[in-house]
Amino acid sequence: MPEDADNAPETPRLLLHELNRGEAAARAADALLVLPVGATEQHGPHLPLGTDVLIVEAIAREAARQARPDLDAIVAPTLPFGSSHHHLPFGGTISLATDRYYAALADMVESLITSGFRRLFILNGHGGNHEVVQLVARDLVLRYPVNIAAASYWDLAREVLASSASRDVLGGRFPGHAGDFETSVILALRPDLVGPLPRRDADALARAGTPATPFRAERHGFWRQIDGHTDSPHAATTERGQQLLDLIIPAVASAFRQFAAMPLE
Amino acid sequence: MPEDADNAPETPRLLLHELNRGEAAARAADALLVLPVGATEQHGPHLPLGTDVLIVEAIAREAARQARPDLDAIVAPTLPFGSSHHHLPFGGTISLATDRYYAALADMVESLITSGFRRLFILNGHGGNHEVVQLVARDLVLRYPVNIAAASYWDLAREVLASSASRDVLGGRFPGHAGDFETSVILALRPDLVGPLPRRDADALARAGTPATPFRAERHGFWRQIDGHTDSPHAATTERGQQLLDLIIPAVASAFRQFAAMPLE
Amino acid sequence: MPEDADNAPETPRLLLHELNRGEAAARAADALLVLPVGATEQHGPHLPLGTDVLIVEAIAREAARQARPDLDAIVAPTLPFGSSHHHLPFGGTISLATDRYYAALADMVESLITSGFRRLFILNGHGGNHEVVQLVARDLVLRYPVNIAAASYWDLAREVLASSASRDVLGGRFPGHAGDFETSVILALRPDLVGPLPRRDADALARAGTPATPFRAERHGFWRQIDGHTDSPHAATTERGQQLLDLIIPAVASAFRQFAAMPLE
Amino acid sequence: MPEDADNAPETPRLLLHELNRGEAAARAADALLVLPVGATEQHGPHLPLGTDVLIVEAIAREAARQARPDLDAIVAPTLPFGSSHHHLPFGGTISLATDRYYAALADMVESLITSGFRRLFILNGHGGNHEVVQLVARDLVLRYPVNIAAASYWDLAREVLASSASRDVLGGRFPGHAGDFETSVILALRPDLVGPLPRRDADALARAGTPATPFRAERHGFWRQIDGHTDSPHAATTERGQQLLDLIIPAVASAFRQFAAMPLE
Amino acid sequence: MPEDADNAPETPRLLLHELNRGEAAARAADALLVLPVGATEQHGPHLPLGTDVLIVEAIAREAARQARPDLDAIVAPTLPFGSSHHHLPFGGTISLATDRYYAALADMVESLITSGFRRLFILNGHGGNHEVVQLVARDLVLRYPVNIAAASYWDLAREVLASSASRDVLGGRFPGHAGDFETSVILALRPDLVGPLPRRDADALARAGTPATPFRAERHGFWRQIDGHTDSPHAATTERGQQLLDLIIPAVASAFRQFAAMPLE
Amino acid sequence: MPEDADNAPETPRLLLHELNRGEAAARAADALLVLPVGATEQHGPHLPLGTDVLIVEAIAREAARQARPDLDAIVAPTLPFGSSHHHLPFGGTISLATDRYYAALADMVESLITSGFRRLFILNGHGGNHEVVQLVARDLVLRYPVNIAAASYWDLAREVLASSASRDVLGGRFPGHAGDFETSVILALRPDLVGPLPRRDADALARAGTPATPFRAERHGFWRQIDGHTDSPHAATTERGQQLLDLIIPAVASAFRQFAAMPLE
Repeated sequence: MPEDADNAPETPRLLLHELNRGEAAARAADALLVLPVGATEQHGPHLPLGTDVLIVEAIAREAARQARPDLDAIVAPTLPFGSSHHHLPFGGTISLATDRYYAALADMVESLITSGFRRLFILNGHGGNHEVVQLVARDLVLRYPVNIAAASYWDLAREVLASSASRDVLGGRFPGHAGDFETSVILALRPDLVGPLPRRDADALARAGTPATPFRAERHGFWRQIDGHTDSPHAATTERGQQLLDLIIPAVASAFRQFAAMPLE
Repeated sequence: MPEDADNAPETPRLLLHELNRGEAAARAADALLVLPVGATEQHGPHLPLGTDVLIVEAIAREAARQARPDLDAIVAPTLPFGSSHHHLPFGGTISLATDRYYAALADMVESLITSGFRRLFILNGHGGNHEVVQLVARDLVLRYPVNIAAASYWDLAREVLASSASRDVLGGRFPGHAGDFETSVILALRPDLVGPLPRRDADALARAGTPATPFRAERHGFWRQIDGHTDSPHAATTERGQQLLDLIIPAVASAFRQFAAMPLE
Repeated sequence: MPEDADNAPETPRLLLHELNRGEAAARAADALLVLPVGATEQHGPHLPLGTDVLIVEAIAREAARQARPDLDAIVAPTLPFGSSHHHLPFGGTISLATDRYYAALADMVESLITSGFRRLFILNGHGGNHEVVQLVARDLVLRYPVNIAAASYWDLAREVLASSASRDVLGGRFPGHAGDFETSVILALRPDLVGPLPRRDADALARAGTPATPFRAERHGFWRQIDGHTDSPHAATTERGQQLLDLIIPAVASAFRQFAAMPLE
Repeated sequence: MPEDADNAPETPRLLLHELNRGEAAARAADALLVLPVGATEQHGPHLPLGTDVLIVEAIAREAARQARPDLDAIVAPTLPFGSSHHHLPFGGTISLATDRYYAALADMVESLITSGFRRLFILNGHGGNHEVVQLVARDLVLRYPVNIAAASYWDLAREVLASSASRDVLGGRFPGHAGDFETSVILALRPDLVGPLPRRDADALARAGTPATPFRAERHGFWRQIDGHTDSPHAATTERGQQLLDLIIPAVASAFRQFAAMPLE
Repeated sequence: MPEDADNAPETPRLLLHELNRGEAAARAADALLVLPVGATEQHGPHLPLGTDVLIVEAIAREAARQARPDLDAIVAPTLPFGSSHHHLPFGGTISLATDRYYAALADMVESLITSGFRRLFILNGHGGNHEVVQLVARDLVLRYPVNIAAASYWDLAREVLASSASRDVLGGRFPGHAGDFETSVILALRPDLVGPLPRRDADALARAGTPATPFRAERHGFWRQIDGHTDSPHAATTERGQQLLDLIIPAVASAFRQFAAMPLE
Repeated sequence: MPEDADNAPETPRLLLHELNRGEAAARAADALLVLPVGATEQHGPHLPLGTDVLIVEAIAREAARQARPDLDAIVAPTLPFGSSHHHLPFGGTISLATDRYYAALADMVESLITSGFRRLFILNGHGGNHEVVQLVARDLVLRYPVNIAAASYWDLAREVLASSASRDVLGGRFPGHAGDFETSVILALRPDLVGPLPRRDADALARAGTPATPFRAERHGFWRQIDGHTDSPHAATTERGQQLLDLIIPAVASAFRQFAAMPLE
């Protein structure tokens, strides 16, 4: 489609949905396509249902911007729904069952491959998606000559956080769910959407919760017992949220660069 | 969750992802939940891949605003991916196969029902989704005591357009794909995303295209033959796009009101 | 299989199940294969469960006969079961769930393509199948170099009915379900299968029913509220049924001709 | 639905599709519902594609008639398509993949159970369906308080054939595919559909074919090697076909009686 | 992988899981791959849950040994779980639903084909798997140029048992479930796992059970009525079990030889 | 089933397949059911295809023994096949596709829950299964009032290894695939199955391999580039393997105890 490619603006756009087909086709072979995936689900009594989308979209787009000019990054629309069945007993959750989420995501990535992209990075912002995004990545590289990365943003930032002033965040539930970490970040991104911060003492949480274990312990009724948030958000602040974002986003940008530099077969 | 409900702001928010769980739970039983569904796919050489998302999201949100105060409307995040396999040969398309799109959408609607919503309106902005959204609606009301509407926005506006100064749009391909109609509307919404308008004479289109028939005629290779757009966009203008939106949005708001007034069993 | 083809009778048979493999193989590349699909489901207190099969099979076969000698039509066995879950609460319904009906029908059409047919027309006789047959048509032409049409017979006849003495049928529910239209047609085809015609006044129907809307409004419990038929059949007559068939069948034959004449890629 | 039941004719109809919903509902609890399943597939160079449907439908309906007045039999429409992928390389075959055939058939039987039937007999007329119909029967009785039988008609007749003048049919391939047995039966039912009978010497068949083994031996390319029929049909006659039907149909009727007499839990 | 093949021991190993990849690759094209499939399910009050696995694994491995040196047999790990939903109401059963069992088994066999095996024998030891293993065999030979056999071990031994001193076993339920036959065999294989043998008189069984019929009669609640075993095991003995194995294993070995000798296309 | 329970031996058996149904039913409510899952797949040129099964089965059974008498452990048969599509290009691999493996495993666990078990521990021995076992655990606790753990054995031992003389194993690829770690363990368990140890210098591996990254980087062709093993096994020894097992098994036993002590809802 060379005639279409002539329409490409001088400064390449970042967002896939703002490109036209010619621009997408012209850049696909060499670009890094970032696919952010989130969730719409309960986040305690105080955070908006779109918390995961707000965070992962902000991180994905800003990290992609920062990764330039080392690479040509294109960010796809965020999938705003994920695997959230464990939150269905609370209000406002939209969720896909595991097998359907896997199938939908695989179709999405496969069509991007069909469109010519060869380096794809699924950036995840919701714990419930963590395993599925990895499965999609590993399964599709077996069928197509492409490289695919899958990661939850918090894993990309763990190292840099450890050597930062905010390293205490790693001592608790990180990222947790609707607790101190996510509340701080939403305070930084969209303070207008945050309600009064609930306080829960650590003892109450300990009584209800599952201790940290080297195995995955799934217990019926767990999320109801902890009222849908993993740790107390009462001390969250806007400043802390911004500090965390300032650490996380460069770490994600760095991951984008590292992955984009890996050779294709 | 009465304690959560106390957090509800005085003016109820419109967007589901900006609500917290308590607000969603408190309003679910009486609200109209609007779920916009779009697509990310090629739209000719000149329109952005996100054309369908941009249009349906703008219409859904503004129509929901206009439908107030007659009803309590809540608009879910737009599903930015749909059933677009016919556009895969072009660049930049993200698509779910029919069975997977049906399954994903059914899961989404089912979880909203689980969250307490009883009146749901799937507002579609992409032709390839047209049949699937209807199937999801009819299948889920058999299993749950709810009312579900499904419609493509252009069908809601057909009548009002017929008696308007813009009635000529109905004489051509309406809404078509990446032709005069969609180009005008994107010019009104996001002129910065529109490239040079291609011109195609009607004869060329007629030679390549499928004539209007009372049956659905699907032909292998059709979309390539017409270069991915159904009619010539060369005469599209911003003004015309705005006029069309000004007719369509109130018609959609009217449909919201009409559906919300239907009794539950 | 040239040795088989020698067995072909001089006047080609119409019905696929009466052909042998050699005849089918010899004619496949140039024939129009018509696949009628119906349903076995409740049709009010007075019409037989096989109403949709009886009607669509009669129309498909006679229209195919009339379309000759302009084209070589072959009519496959009618699929007597469809997507009828909304009728399950009544007696005698046999139904496939949406995803299974789509999958079964896709397999059927795909095997016909494998057998060499390149022009296939799915003629539908049951409202519940309307969306699925279209999805099957559009999805398979993406994978095979064939043309596939999908239509419900009533849509093919709408135009000719509008300019006929029977145009009043379009003013009501058309085709409706087990109402005036279908009752008249079954009276013409199989009067022995029609029981006493129930009468329902329009007001009762209006109170229970869903008004005509430009959107698809699905309401839980709807079919029970209207006792499984959409309009009153009390005035149906054999003569009217025959008149309707005499209008519909040529319209369907015309659609067969029009589709068969469309070029293959 | 007592008001509907008043419409039931004095002599109950045999065919489900000729009943109305009230008749079906009134008889379901005590009737035997027979569901014939066939196939549309190549049957050698000489037999029609609908061979299996023609045979199983004739047997099912006549056996059901003969089983009266000992039981109230109702015969559903024949499913004219089955599991015939092994015949796809020949012309004219319509087939469902195994998993889709299982799913479709299970839905059909499940909806009959929902309609109130408690004794269901799946009568199979195509070898490729033999295992699937049994799986459907066994799986659904685990979920519903009903009795379901599944059988291929030839297994019901094996014993009576062994003590008849036609016992020689058991010495060969019985029923085989498009060989002596099926050819004779189609000659009896629809002689107009039978082409010149091919002759194949036993040695040629033995060289190509798979010997009788106590295990299921599936070999790639087998059906092409034997030209799609298992034994030579050259000696088939109408008289022999009629004699076989006269033995088979009472045996099937007897099975209907025996099964209908089995107690429900 | 010639360098790997050098690692092959002089006496080829029997068990696939003991081979390394080079040995497997080197032998695949000419070997017979035996895949035993069993079940973990209730076997009456007296037999272990692993009865079917113990029996089929013992038979498969010893028959494969005996079939040497006529062929190169390799025995895969036994799939210890099968289609046992009918035994779920009793304790200790692990079961896959029919469609999932079919899919899992098909994947297993397909990956063996991908690994180069061209002759595969699925040896089944559990009645509930009988149909599914055959379906997998027939479906995969259509897609790959291989030969696949599927058999339940008892069918392979039926003929030899008929002319043996143990022919009486054929007069009863053979193999039945947790009755005389299986109890004898487990007494021979693992007497330590057999509890006190229950006794049930034939009349009680007859009252509860389903008579032998030429059709498959499935009745809701059947397995509970007969307390999960088909015939009385009270007379089972170790000696009889050993005699039966001594007849069955050579018969299975003979089937392996016969199948391995069949030509590939 | 109290009469069955009387058959329980005084010392309860460890292996589920050796229990009878009464023993299983009697112990289910209070026991910990351990389900080991492995794989049959290539393990370099030197290790047996059953490496993962041999290791995880040995660990699961011995750890369960050590966990007594603190809890009543029952070990199910090992599922010897897993998600190994990435190893299919090498010889001898048996693999289930991701969605089928998830479905099969979910059915297995669900039937154990139906059988009365309330505490289930899926112990995984193959990296390719790691995400799927976790998804099964989390999804089933949402539907049943049970606790389910899922873990790969190496994660359970990471902490104890870190403070041991064998801590160096954590510095390399741990557990890796067919490298130093697994080779040592198989040397300890089944030295007869280990072929000559290949040697690969670290530089070669580095050139081919993927560096450790905080994201999951999947590259087409990766496994072929590293010849199917992640690190050089040349220095593996039996002693080291035994030392590792002596550290791992108690750690797994400890996890069993910790999980069994968690309260049910």
